[in-house]
This record gives sequence, C-alpha cells and structure tokens, in this order.
Amino acid sequence: MNEALIEKVVKEFIDEMRNTESLQKVEVKESIAKDSIEIPLETSARHVHLSKEDLEFLFGDSEELGVRKKLSQPGQFQYDERVNLIGPKGNINNVAILGPARSQSQVEISYTDARTLGVQPPLKDSGDLEGSVGIIISTGKKALNLSKGVIVAKRHIHMTEEDARKLGVKNGQEVSVKIKSRRPAILEGVLIRVSDNYSFSMHIDHDEGNATAYLPGTKAEIVK
Amino acid sequence: MNEALIEKVVKEFIDEMRNTESLQKVEVKESIAKDSIEIPLETSARHVHLSKEDLEFLFGDSEELGVRKKLSQPGQFQYDERVNLIGPKGNINNVAILGPARSQSQVEISYTDARTLGVQPPLKDSGDLEGSVGIIISTGKKALNLSKGVIVAKRHIHMTEEDARKLGVKNGQEVSVKIKSRRPAILEGVLIRVSDNYSFSMHIDHDEGNATAYLPGTKAEIVK
Repeated sequence: MNEALIEKVVKEFIDEMRNTESLQKVEVKESIAKDSIEIPLETSARHVHLSKEDLEFLFGDSEELGVRKKLSQPGQFQYDERVNLIGPKGNINNVAILGPARSQSQVEISYTDARTLGVQPPLKDSGDLEGSVGIIISTGKKALNLSKGVIVAKRHIHMTEEDARKLGVKNGQEVSVKIKSRRPAILEGVLIRVSDNYSFSMHIDHDEGNATAYLPGTKAEIVK
Repeated sequence: MNEALIEKVVKEFIDEMRNTESLQKVEVKESIAKDSIEIPLETSARHVHLSKEDLEFLFGDSEELGVRKKLSQPGQFQYDERVNLIGPKGNINNVAILGPARSQSQVEISYTDARTLGVQPPLKDSGDLEGSVGIIISTGKKALNLSKGVIVAKRHIHMTEEDARKLGVKNGQEVSVKIKSRRPAILEGVLIRVSDNYSFSMHIDHDEGNATAYLPGTKAEIVK
C-alpha cells in the first residue's frame, strides 16, 4: 500500500466520521428542542355552532342571548342557552352552543355520541362540512331540521405564527403527538392550525381524552 | 506513519464497519418480521364477571343459566341474562355477564361509563382488583352491593407461546401497538398475556376504539 494514499484515505475517513458525529449531535439537539415544548391539552365536549339564521329561528333575536363563559380561544364563548340533539336512535340533551355565529351551522360530536344518536358523521376538519350528515336540533319549543353539519372533528393544535416557528411546523401540516398520561399514546394525523388570533392549545374529543385517561393538566408533545 | 500499522488499523476498521453493517441488517430484518405480523383487534364492551356465589345470589342456581354466545377466547362465553349497573350519578342497563364464574366478581367499564355512573375506577390488569371501587349490580329483582371489583381494564394482547416466540415478546411485557385506522394512533403500555388457552387477539375498550375510529377488521401491529 502507498503510505501517502493511506494517510489521505484515513484522514478523509476521520473527517467524515467527525462530520457525521457533529451532524448527529445537531439533529439530537433540534429534536430535544422541539420535544421540550409542552402543549396545553384540552378536551372538547360535544357542541353546536349555529348560523345567525338558525340561531334566530330557534331563539328569536340573537342579540338578546346571554353569554355563559368565555372559551380559551380568543373571541370564542359559550351561550347561556343549550339545545337537544334528536337522532334516529336516541337523543342527547343539554348540548352547549358556542359563539359567535358562523356562516354555516355545525355540530361536533364524538363517535360515542354518534352511536347514541344513530348517525354516521365523517371525520373532518372544523368548517369542512362536505359529506357531513343531518340532525334535528331542538330547544324543546322549536325544532330545526339540519340537513347537514354533523361531523366528528379531527384533533388539532391551535397556535400563533410564533409558536409555529418555534415548533418548526406550518399551517395545515399533520403531526404526531405524544399524550403524556397514565394511559399514554401517540396520536397521529394531528392538524396544525396557525393564526395570530389563536391561543396555544391542542384539542381532542372526549373519546380521545378517555382513551388516554386525560385529566386537566395532562401535557402533550409533538414527536414528529 | 508506519505503513504496517496503518494497514492493520484500516483493516480492523473495515472489518468493524462490515460487522456493524451486517448486525444492522439483521436488526432491520427482525424488525420487519415483527412488524409484518398483523394482530386481530377487538373492542370489549362493558361487562361483568361474577363469582359463583354472586351469580347464585342474583339468579339462583347458576347451572340453569343459559349461554347466549361463545366468545373469541376459548372457553369464554356470554350468559343469556344481563344486569344493570347502579352508580351514585347514573345507571347503565343491559350489561353482559361473561362466564365461566371467577373467584372474584369484576366489573370492566370504560372511563365514559365511569363518568355516567359517577365512580372512579383505577386502570388495572384484569384480575388485579387492588384499589378497585364498588358498585350496585341489579337484576331488577335483586341488588348486589359489590364493595370492590370495578376497574378500567388495561389494553392487552392475548396470544399463545408460539405467537409470543414469533413476535419476540414475553408474558407480562408491555409493548407499543400501532392501530392502522383512519384515525391512527400508537397505543403505549399494551400488556402481553401469554397462554396456550388463548386465541391471538388484541382487546381495547370502546373509548380506545372510538378514539381510533375502530371498525371491525381494523388491524394492529407491534411497533416496539
């Protein structure tokens, strides 16, 4: 073997190993940085969003409806009034109405609720009612025949542009999220929703909450 | 540099790299082999196991009880009779009783059911009733005051010794399992239960089933 050539090869090899090692270190560090951001986790109970038209059909003047409480997302609130969902197999009473009024009425339920009511809603992003199913919404005094609007909402994370930058994610992206509970799981296909009107929070429904033994304060972390 | 020494170092290094590479190949192959075994997945509805004594307290002679259907696990069956669960906040009627009779009565419910009933059961392996809570079990004609026995059952996989060998797992081990559905998740802490009396099947409750949009035929795979 030629001594100069061997020396060259060994040096190149050592350089390459060192570079690989340092690259690996960087990757590990980035991964730790992302993982160390804990996401506040909330469970969403079944609820109804109503259009102004539907709200006034059920309750009359929508300006006179009272606000029960503000929600964690800025500008969102829960009305004092509640409604009943009437399905072909069963009813669910005392369901919250969230405001402000939207352009289309939308009913967000869990698969457990869907079985109780006897409806087959699709799994959709909030606002996307393509393929959604109908339901009767009743106040006890008036009933609204909604021909579409019932969905099971996809789990998602609300965040600001700054949160998205810190986490290295983009609006519309889907990520996997570890739920750090005593019944831990990695939920896949979690939708990232970015707007400077949002407060940093992950939303899952009660099925997902119960499946992971969610308790208030349970934390979540993006794992990829 | 000494030419002989360099040659020796380079050769040793190349040998080591080759060994590492071949080890990695073996690991990858094993990993693929494990991942390619699909586990049949079943959801367990809420149900009751009764001791012979409790069965006879509620129904009289247990020998005269009818069998409604056999279950997937060999020797296990569901009785014709059903019971009602009576809790401090609500009742759940028409709950299945599984046989044969056990040494201790045990009530397996979901966290959704626990909320309906108003009880706080622990998350436990079937048969481990330490820390479990009480409930009233009623036939409508007779009521049994169970002082303990209510649990949320930990998700688990039943398998034979041969299945365990193929999958490279042991009785009592916990694994992570990917649920391959349209709402995919990796469920962690899934208990391996090995017995040659078992049929190969993973059991999750209805909360876990709904959280992953389980449908009959949904498959699962051990991911680590």
